[in-house]
Amino acid sequence: MASKFPVLEVFGPTVQGEGMVVGQKTMFVRTAGCDYSCSWCDSAFTWDGSAKDDIKQLTAEEIWNQLEEVGGDRFRHVTISGGNPALLKNLGEFTELLKKKEVKVALETQGSRYQPWFLEIDDLTISPKPPSSLMKTDFHRLDEIINNLREAGRLMHVSLKVVIFDEEDLRYATNVHKRYPDVSFYVQVGNHDTATLDDAALKDALLSKYEWLIDQVSASNELNHVRVLPQLHTLVWGNKRGV
Amino acid sequence: MASKFPVLEVFGPTVQGEGMVVGQKTMFVRTAGCDYSCSWCDSAFTWDGSAKDDIKQLTAEEIWNQLEEVGGDRFRHVTISGGNPALLKNLGEFTELLKKKEVKVALETQGSRYQPWFLEIDDLTISPKPPSSLMKTDFHRLDEIINNLREAGRLMHVSLKVVIFDEEDLRYATNVHKRYPDVSFYVQVGNHDTATLDDAALKDALLSKYEWLIDQVSASNELNHVRVLPQLHTLVWGNKRGV
Ligand code: SF4
Ligand code: SF4
Repeated sequence: MASKFPVLEVFGPTVQGEGMVVGQKTMFVRTAGCDYSCSWCDSAFTWDGSAKDDIKQLTAEEIWNQLEEVGGDRFRHVTISGGNPALLKNLGEFTELLKKKEVKVALETQGSRYQPWFLEIDDLTISPKPPSSLMKTDFHRLDEIINNLREAGRLMHVSLKVVIFDEEDLRYATNVHKRYPDVSFYVQVGNHDTATLDDAALKDALLSKYEWLIDQVSASNELNHVRVLPQLHTLVWGNKRGV
Repeated sequence: MASKFPVLEVFGPTVQGEGMVVGQKTMFVRTAGCDYSCSWCDSAFTWDGSAKDDIKQLTAEEIWNQLEEVGGDRFRHVTISGGNPALLKNLGEFTELLKKKEVKVALETQGSRYQPWFLEIDDLTISPKPPSSLMKTDFHRLDEIINNLREAGRLMHVSLKVVIFDEEDLRYATNVHKRYPDVSFYVQVGNHDTATLDDAALKDALLSKYEWLIDQVSASNELNHVRVLPQLHTLVWGNKRGV
């Protein structure tokens, strides 16, 4: 029998605002549920119960139908985000379906759980959480995930991304980069205020923080093979959801 | 004897603000001279004579020394920009030197001229100019360039990028994308005012145009495998040079 997956949002096409395929035209599928509770989570509604009435239990086929309904023939790329979609053991049913439809698939997870279907993801972002999140990285687990991907020859489809709020986060990021020097590495400006509706002030603050992060990375000789990015969608739309 | 190249600026490390390696930590080397004169050129000082006293004639070795002087041990990536660096027949002397130093190299050109050393570039951006530039694309030449790169198995190191100011530009971009469907394709928000010092107004205008461009691409079923990007450096620094 086909598995069901907890889906919170299907929207797009729009562009991916961050990470290894920043700017990519894509549809989004957001799954519910997370094993973390980051202090600054910008998707807390996926796990804090506040949107639990919006969760739909859908099969792979049903998610696809929703994608077509919303996106028509205007997409060839789907991004699965969460929450942590890596909690969903059978999500390979959905990634296989996308492959059959010749649609590329991106997925982001914090790296707390491995799934064999990671090997099917075209753009896999692993985003371990720095100290400011108040979460603790299980590096033994992360080693395992990266090793699996490396041994399967998938590293060209994989990146590591660390969100940075302060200097301690940047030290953490530097250590992650040194631990996995052969994995494409991204640092991203953290959004310190995921609630504000004052878009103009938020944009200014985020651009200033981006400049700070560029300066920090520029000054380091341990962060030479690095890409530094803001969240484009926050610059354009502030904290609005579903864009 | 070692060739000399007309160099206008060596600066960094900073981040690449646009295109296929957007966000990449990099040094910049800007060469003088262009065979185009785009109406909205943001680097007109490279060819309009206004900076001709700043041009230094440097060998590959001398450019490298400048890079080390400015960037120390804080870089492993160099971006060559212009003007049109593809006018420089012997620039392979410099790209070979970078290879020897284990430094990655990116280069941008409008696609009016092929050079055999294109095959040595890690991130080659070919940026044909849309109607608003008032330039005319030689598609016969562009076909030749893309074919050479395709036959050499280099397409994973190549992208096409078109700067968009209006709907006519977007139609041009759509045709370029359809002509070379196997080449990574980027559209970028054009900067309509490369002179203003009013950074806040410029940022707002560019973010609005970015939103417009995302909407246009989202609405098209011919632009599904596309990445849509702003110029990050303009959002952060406005029209300031050398950052
Ligand atoms: S891992 Fe992601 S979704 Fe989960 S709490 Fe942290 S930021 Fe939120
Ligand atoms: S090709 Fe580039 S450098 Fe040359 S005029 Fe056009 S925009 Fe300026």
